[in-house]
Amino acid sequence: MNAPAQIRQDAALSPAQTLWDLTGDDMAAVDALILDRMQSSVGMIPDLAQHLVGAGGKRLRPLLTITAAQLCGYASCSKGGTAHHKLAAAVEFIHSATLLHDDVVDESALRRGKKPANLIWGNSASILVGDFLFARAFNLMVETGSMEALGILSNASSVIAEGEVQQLAALRNLAMTEETYMQVIEAKTAALFAAATEVAPVIADCPATERDALREYGLKLGLAFQLVDDALDYGGMASALGKSVGDDFREGKMTLPVIRALETASEDDKAFWRRVIVDHDQKDVDLEKAVSMLRASGALESTMELAKRYSQDAADALNVFPQSSLRDTLKELAGFVVARIS
Amino acid sequence: MNAPAQIRQDAALSPAQTLWDLTGDDMAAVDALILDRMQSSVGMIPDLAQHLVGAGGKRLRPLLTITAAQLCGYASCSKGGTAHHKLAAAVEFIHSATLLHDDVVDESALRRGKKPANLIWGNSASILVGDFLFARAFNLMVETGSMEALGILSNASSVIAEGEVQQLAALRNLAMTEETYMQVIEAKTAALFAAATEVAPVIADCPATERDALREYGLKLGLAFQLVDDALDYGGMASALGKSVGDDFREGKMTLPVIRALETASEDDKAFWRRVIVDHDQKDVDLEKAVSMLRASGALESTMELAKRYSQDAADALNVFPQSSLRDTLKELAGFVVARIS
Repeated sequence: MNAPAQIRQDAALSPAQTLWDLTGDDMAAVDALILDRMQSSVGMIPDLAQHLVGAGGKRLRPLLTITAAQLCGYASCSKGGTAHHKLAAAVEFIHSATLLHDDVVDESALRRGKKPANLIWGNSASILVGDFLFARAFNLMVETGSMEALGILSNASSVIAEGEVQQLAALRNLAMTEETYMQVIEAKTAALFAAATEVAPVIADCPATERDALREYGLKLGLAFQLVDDALDYGGMASALGKSVGDDFREGKMTLPVIRALETASEDDKAFWRRVIVDHDQKDVDLEKAVSMLRASGALESTMELAKRYSQDAADALNVFPQSSLRDTLKELAGFVVARIS
Repeated sequence: MNAPAQIRQDAALSPAQTLWDLTGDDMAAVDALILDRMQSSVGMIPDLAQHLVGAGGKRLRPLLTITAAQLCGYASCSKGGTAHHKLAAAVEFIHSATLLHDDVVDESALRRGKKPANLIWGNSASILVGDFLFARAFNLMVETGSMEALGILSNASSVIAEGEVQQLAALRNLAMTEETYMQVIEAKTAALFAAATEVAPVIADCPATERDALREYGLKLGLAFQLVDDALDYGGMASALGKSVGDDFREGKMTLPVIRALETASEDDKAFWRRVIVDHDQKDVDLEKAVSMLRASGALESTMELAKRYSQDAADALNVFPQSSLRDTLKELAGFVVARIS
């Protein structure tokens, strides 16, 4: 099965595609801004950036910023302008910078169905172009003139890095607790989703209730998104669709399915996890065995259940807004994120 | 010879030490802020950051910010507060982040006379803690409330990354021109020196002439600093003092001494440079041979001469300020930077 084609097909059916349609020209403007601001006279920069952030990405995080801005009536408010495009592009640049650095850290074999940039241009280029995109994100934020938005996104940036370091420190540590895991995914993933949705009401000068609601939506959506990702890394409950399976397992990354399976594991099963995660001694059949154990123990199912709860929390948070196509499609998006899993 | 002791001894005699004394409590406040803001509940972060930015660093760039702020009368101006401490700490964090990433990119064996962090904590930790410090720099800038200072430092940050990528792309390329080399060192080194000095008049609301002068001082000081560094990597004109020599040579990094030596090189000499730089085929005696060639060709001397010209330009730029101990010590600092070389 062709993975990128499958992803495009998913996207065509998804609420994300509906949001692209509903938000009109804004996402095209964000796309153009992203392409413009990743340019540089140093040719390696646009070459590498194009590979990762060029046309065709899902742009989920900028889409959240743009949708939230429209939901808050940013364009028609007294401060209306192009700050939402700039912040949306900045959010995508921050995300892209973390992906470039993650590829080096994780030694990933695939990224968005493609060979990761570091395996083409080398680790050094990925590190430095990541730094460039991160700095460009701040250039864009400065242009908006919103110190409050800058504070939210710069805070999210340091929280993301903290989460990544915490995850690194917990690598191959079977004693990692569910509490630590939740801290890690909130920091490394949900913080940027939350910032992406929160900056919109900030620049639109919306009431605190709307700001709180959008931040809550982003945060819970991000948690659900990462939980699903971590369950899908073990194939979810059925066969995986076009996603490479077993990356976390091979890296010895502790995720909720493994943490929960360990809680009820027999001594034999614990010995298995110690060997594959702590000793990092893995045979060809071990991933299949791990998936069976995670399914049999109910750990994958309970991870999914938790993702669904967060997805529901995300949708519920939007009830402070009156009914609208935008609001309801954001709610559907939360449902769609967890529907990926089965 | 013990390198760190030598550095401390140099510092004790240097105008930098005089500036620490002249600026009173400000640098102690910057030190405290640096130590405070590199903290995190994720223990690996302060451990690694302490190794690099903990007490005892020269803090040259923050010292420039603080001295410039005092020269501009920031403390007694209408906007006076603690923004200069925050910007000085931010400048040091940006610098530290680039050092952490450079260590991974360059595969350095020594950093500030110590084992670089990536050889102790691993490349992944250096990448991610670098990201953390970079984000924390922006947190500090946001706290100052100065969008103009943020613009200057975020612009410098993207320029630095561009310069690093340009340098990477030119690695082992014997055709690198002096023009490209100057672009690289202005971007990777001088841009942050210039930003460090320019932000001070910005927050002190100084006239444009003072702002331009301080920016010019920082820029030219940075150029001189990097030229000296590149000459010292081949031992300068005499023996090197406690500095590891030959890093650039071993990496195949093109610097001005080599670029200028190539201009007048015989065919035999060109073949030598092709072998050691392009083919990266180096024998034990080659560094010594390279140093002899760079000395004999006058390339090291002409690199030093250029550094001295920039140092003089830096000192001259400060003539818009009335005579004062601060001004004159900044001028001496420019002279001291190039005096390292002989």
